[in-house]
Amino acid sequence: MNTRQQAIGVFDSGVGGLTVLRALMQALPGESFVYLGDTARLPYGTKTAATVQRYAARAAQFLVQHGVKALVVACNTASAAALPALREHYAHLPVLGVIEPGAASAVAATRSGRIAVLATESTVAGGAYVQAIQALRPQAPVQSLACQLFVALAEEGWVDGEVALAAAHRYLDPLFATAHNRPDVLLLGCTHFPVLAPVLSQVVGADVAVVDASHAVAAALRAVLTERDLLSGAASATAPLLLATDGLARFARVGSTFLGQPLAVTQVQLVDL
Amino acid sequence: MNTRQQAIGVFDSGVGGLTVLRALMQALPGESFVYLGDTARLPYGTKTAATVQRYAARAAQFLVQHGVKALVVACNTASAAALPALREHYAHLPVLGVIEPGAASAVAATRSGRIAVLATESTVAGGAYVQAIQALRPQAPVQSLACQLFVALAEEGWVDGEVALAAAHRYLDPLFATAHNRPDVLLLGCTHFPVLAPVLSQVVGADVAVVDASHAVAAALRAVLTERDLLSGAASATAPLLLATDGLARFARVGSTFLGQPLAVTQVQLVDL
Repeated sequence: MNTRQQAIGVFDSGVGGLTVLRALMQALPGESFVYLGDTARLPYGTKTAATVQRYAARAAQFLVQHGVKALVVACNTASAAALPALREHYAHLPVLGVIEPGAASAVAATRSGRIAVLATESTVAGGAYVQAIQALRPQAPVQSLACQLFVALAEEGWVDGEVALAAAHRYLDPLFATAHNRPDVLLLGCTHFPVLAPVLSQVVGADVAVVDASHAVAAALRAVLTERDLLSGAASATAPLLLATDGLARFARVGSTFLGQPLAVTQVQLVDL
Repeated sequence: MNTRQQAIGVFDSGVGGLTVLRALMQALPGESFVYLGDTARLPYGTKTAATVQRYAARAAQFLVQHGVKALVVACNTASAAALPALREHYAHLPVLGVIEPGAASAVAATRSGRIAVLATESTVAGGAYVQAIQALRPQAPVQSLACQLFVALAEEGWVDGEVALAAAHRYLDPLFATAHNRPDVLLLGCTHFPVLAPVLSQVVGADVAVVDASHAVAAALRAVLTERDLLSGAASATAPLLLATDGLARFARVGSTFLGQPLAVTQVQLVDL
């Protein structure tokens, strides 16, 4: 098989990475995708870096054996812990994470340098976004905020309405309520959060750019595929192949919010890593 | 050491069981407690029954080696999966779970038999509360509702205010808004939920009994200790010994909501199971 016709492999600890898959499918409509959600081992965020590296290596190996022309690590925890090792191991493949593209996109969008990063507790504690942003714009006054409830809201499919709005106010008003030192960019540093972008934008106001890493990843992937002459050239592609390591019914039910289209349990296949 | 002076061992996958510990400490102020939160392996709810049984066996063994006169499984998932095996293995000790006492308490409180059980997704899917209730009151029209967001709200410490109130309305109004077939008991079938009892009671109204399994467990434990002449007889006890298998800072921070008193990280000890 011609390499150009191979699929792009995407993996995450669960369903959150489907927001990245969605952005990739929109940006690259001629490409085929295989998505692997390692739902049997989630959450990655509470595991040690060594364990996450082992899980990520296994997921990447599975996708590479399946025959993919590029790998996207659609998981913040795995991007922070495992990207250098995966890039070294699969030096012949483009391997993209979500953190660098997200940080670059936020830096491009900010005027003041004041960027607010919303993420999970473990991503905030790890500091990967702050490092990636400050590598591009040293001393940028980045603020990170752990918003665990947004994960639950997104998984429950409560992405608008009173609960989401009240939660967004409670998290964000302390950061955005005063004109002085107000961030001008809100970076969504968790793959679950893009589905909440409309309500977040409503709360912070139209003068704050809401930056969603998934679109930045899609742009970066398009660039690298173009550069290496790996674009499929097809006008349209087949439906993505969706794989999960446990809980197919939940994957389909919760995943439809993230993928932005209905998902039947029959569209997801169980695999053992 | 006299058996009566031994501590009571309590374990859970994380911090939720601290609501049970709190009820036990209130009901049995002369007793000493050792609490083990298996935070390295949480959540139990997404694991297979065989895995949860293995984890529970290890936690129980640790507490028994520590020297306890009774075991309380303060975790719905472990109660459902592992209680029979633990009772058989530690036949010389009182071993209590949370499901049977909670179900008995709900059955005692209902007139119509219409009981609404709020729990996590995995507890609802397992059906243990429905079985336990219908074993006591056959054909009782029990309704189970998965309320995942309540877990996140409790862990975030957002136990009152606008977000908790809006979430409670969104989950409960469909069950309680019509006078016809309205449940008269709301059973909190997750150890995280008692901290939300005031807001839940406000939403369902004063004519619905909100039953919290933790108080039922405390009453059952008092009964069995009395029957076996195992009460310590002391007027007051030392502070509980708090152990966790990972993430002491988070355990202390989140746990203080559940225990209902401030917790410093220095009050929690790391153990390896």
